[in-house]
Amino acid sequence: MEKESKKKELVKVVKGARDFLPDQMVIRGKAFDLITSVFKKHGAVEIDTPVFELKETLMGKYGEESKLIYDLNDQGGELLSLRYDLTVPFARYMATHNLTSLKRFHIGKVYRRDNPQMSKGRFREFFQCDFDIAGGNYGLMIPDAEVIKIVAEILSQLPIGNFNIKINHRVLLDSIVEISGISNDKYRAVCSSIDKLDKEPWDKVKEELVGVKGVTEEQAEKLKTFVVLKDKPKILLDKLMTMKDLTENEKGKKALDEMAILIEYLQILEVEKYCTFDLSLARGLDYYTGLIYETVLTDTDEVGSISGGGRFDNLIGMFSGKQIPAVGVSIGIERIFNILEKHYKNDDTLRSTFTDVLVCAAGKNLTKERFKIVNELWDSGINAEILYNENPRMDKQLDYGLKNKIPFLVFIGENELKENKIKIKCLANSQEMVIEREKMVEEIKKLKTDKNLLIVKKNNKIK
Amino acid sequence: MEKESKKKELVKVVKGARDFLPDQMVIRGKAFDLITSVFKKHGAVEIDTPVFELKETLMGKYGEESKLIYDLNDQGGELLSLRYDLTVPFARYMATHNLTSLKRFHIGKVYRRDNPQMSKGRFREFFQCDFDIAGGNYGLMIPDAEVIKIVAEILSQLPIGNFNIKINHRVLLDSIVEISGISNDKYRAVCSSIDKLDKEPWDKVKEELVGVKGVTEEQAEKLKTFVVLKDKPKILLDKLMTMKDLTENEKGKKALDEMAILIEYLQILEVEKYCTFDLSLARGLDYYTGLIYETVLTDTDEVGSISGGGRFDNLIGMFSGKQIPAVGVSIGIERIFNILEKHYKNDDTLRSTFTDVLVCAAGKNLTKERFKIVNELWDSGINAEILYNENPRMDKQLDYGLKNKIPFLVFIGENELKENKIKIKCLANSQEMVIEREKMVEEIKKLKTDKNLLIVKKNNKIK
Repeated sequence: MEKESKKKELVKVVKGARDFLPDQMVIRGKAFDLITSVFKKHGAVEIDTPVFELKETLMGKYGEESKLIYDLNDQGGELLSLRYDLTVPFARYMATHNLTSLKRFHIGKVYRRDNPQMSKGRFREFFQCDFDIAGGNYGLMIPDAEVIKIVAEILSQLPIGNFNIKINHRVLLDSIVEISGISNDKYRAVCSSIDKLDKEPWDKVKEELVGVKGVTEEQAEKLKTFVVLKDKPKILLDKLMTMKDLTENEKGKKALDEMAILIEYLQILEVEKYCTFDLSLARGLDYYTGLIYETVLTDTDEVGSISGGGRFDNLIGMFSGKQIPAVGVSIGIERIFNILEKHYKNDDTLRSTFTDVLVCAAGKNLTKERFKIVNELWDSGINAEILYNENPRMDKQLDYGLKNKIPFLVFIGENELKENKIKIKCLANSQEMVIEREKMVEEIKKLKTDKNLLIVKKNNKIK
Repeated sequence: MEKESKKKELVKVVKGARDFLPDQMVIRGKAFDLITSVFKKHGAVEIDTPVFELKETLMGKYGEESKLIYDLNDQGGELLSLRYDLTVPFARYMATHNLTSLKRFHIGKVYRRDNPQMSKGRFREFFQCDFDIAGGNYGLMIPDAEVIKIVAEILSQLPIGNFNIKINHRVLLDSIVEISGISNDKYRAVCSSIDKLDKEPWDKVKEELVGVKGVTEEQAEKLKTFVVLKDKPKILLDKLMTMKDLTENEKGKKALDEMAILIEYLQILEVEKYCTFDLSLARGLDYYTGLIYETVLTDTDEVGSISGGGRFDNLIGMFSGKQIPAVGVSIGIERIFNILEKHYKNDDTLRSTFTDVLVCAAGKNLTKERFKIVNELWDSGINAEILYNENPRMDKQLDYGLKNKIPFLVFIGENELKENKIKIKCLANSQEMVIEREKMVEEIKKLKTDKNLLIVKKNNKIK
């Protein structure tokens, strides 16, 4: 009994992590292919960095979240930690390779010792798909606008329904806190309360601000006049431009001017329609310095953001000593996977193998003959399999073909061998043909051009 | 001064690990694409597992090499280790998901606290590309032969010169040790000496056997009569079949019978020519139970094996409690990368971005116009970029196009805007044309079909 549970323990997947099964890999591949193609469409190079960094490299970058970093055991030598995101490794990469500008993407797993809720897509090991533009002397909001275009391009091509890209500006938040008379040392605490406004009513947030965060009643009421505001970007911008509090505040003026430029670009790029200007958006990480954004899905039960990002003008300088401004986005794929998995559940075209031909024995002791045929197919670039049994039964071979949606079965038996022929059966329509063995490759290649023959339905009955 | 070296420390890549730069990513992608396509050609599904496993899962699987496993810090909760290979996670996966058969591939990074020699392709974080066939009741040597076919297919399609697949049989080694009168408890130590025969002469190996491993002079001389033997598989097999010592030993007989079947299959699959039957091949890992193999390159300075594998009939059972035989191969990609990097060094077709069009401003204050044009290209599925400066200089735009081998530049200036036209310049041949703006997408798509226009040479001079 104890031995049994011991064995169970041994075969457990690590808490908060997951295996990807074959069907999931195919779906994951589709998502990555789309995301990669959009990143490439915008001229980004791809890079990769190690899964671990020096512990020191990650320290002091994530504020309170630092406690979620996985450290490696000290086994002698350098002290290492698993990467927490791809942004800090990107900044380190820029410094390591002495770069002053780069447009790159990076798809990789990151690690957080968080409380996992896997049904909600929250894992301890999960993928991030990052796109960033780093470089100095760039026109105000030009790369920022392109990054939002990229998010919109990717999400509108995935079958995940409608989405909302919330935008805000870090400096606008600064000015709002300042205008409300709240001292700067409360900034981070106040923002984390404000950020809850997408899930909680104002009264509840106010309770926390006044009760826990040390904000006065009056300050909270002033804050409210701003943070409850959200609307289509241009509409809210026009409204904010009439609020003297903001336009006469130095930071407020600066942020609104930047947002005005951004919003005009978003209109030209035809993506303003996907965006909401939301003054309650306040992303947690310390390193943002300008525009911030976050995307949520609006048609599904999947909660939480599926992408987020913003401008971080000082992070790279923490490594390189040179100030290199940057803006980027991180797309989280786990929640998208959940939706895609449901989407593809009954899709007959989804296969986890890509085999064109199963070479079958119709009789005994034909292993060498099967090897000869399958070898000819392999060497002609055709995806092909045999069953590995010495004398596979006919029903097993048919079952295998159907289960794996293999479009063509090639049969050899005593008769075919004698006459130097083979039989081809198309599983999509149960049609059969007997042809000269020399014509096999040519015929299979011809059959493969007929798309109707390539889709074998899951519950197909073989006639 | 101290501050400076502190900064240097922070931007270091972890010892034994590497960043992949954009060109390297493209080359790596080419290798992975080929490897993946061959794995798929043979009907394998793809899976993925977490980078870490429970520490206990990895314990007792790697013999002496266990000391090279990276452990995570105990931060509460489960004790974790980074995976050491993809084989043990595969066995754990089979048990976790209650599978009795699977043909899968898995490409991922593995981790070893080894002494790194990066110029020789030995890293602490490196890729393995694994293909394994697991399942019971399969015909003797059928999957084993296919795995060797796969190795040959992959390596013969890579521009890495000639290679040699050494094959041997674990049970044959057992019998040789037994016939030489060496006790079974010395088996592992003796094999690790034998395995050095590819680099050292017999006298040196004998010295170690007698001096360190406790083998007698006589035993060593008997051992020698076997372990110096290597030849084309069929030739050596025929020779071994005449050696009564072997054929009258139960294990020897069993192993030779299996090798005879394998070699016949290898001939049918037309890959025997790549193989050498080498009685000194003795792979280190404990879990092998039958056929073993290892591949070395013969045309390059790159030393060490680039792929290895064999049959491991008991490993999955250590997790599942059910004996599920398996055979597979692991292809190490780091040494192959080194060769590919040299191969592609001066290849003008190699690009790290895939941009078709750079939209250029011929004049000032054209950012919105550039955005309009590039947006039209993006929305038509054309890969396009603009420089992010407000008023990019003409020479900078041309330089960027050349440096990134972007085949087409689209120019807009005051004149073009007035006449509703654009100018296209092909960087491959410096040809220019002025066309109606509405025809832009159509024209670019047409130009893209001319392959000569897509290759921009590195040192091209723009006329």
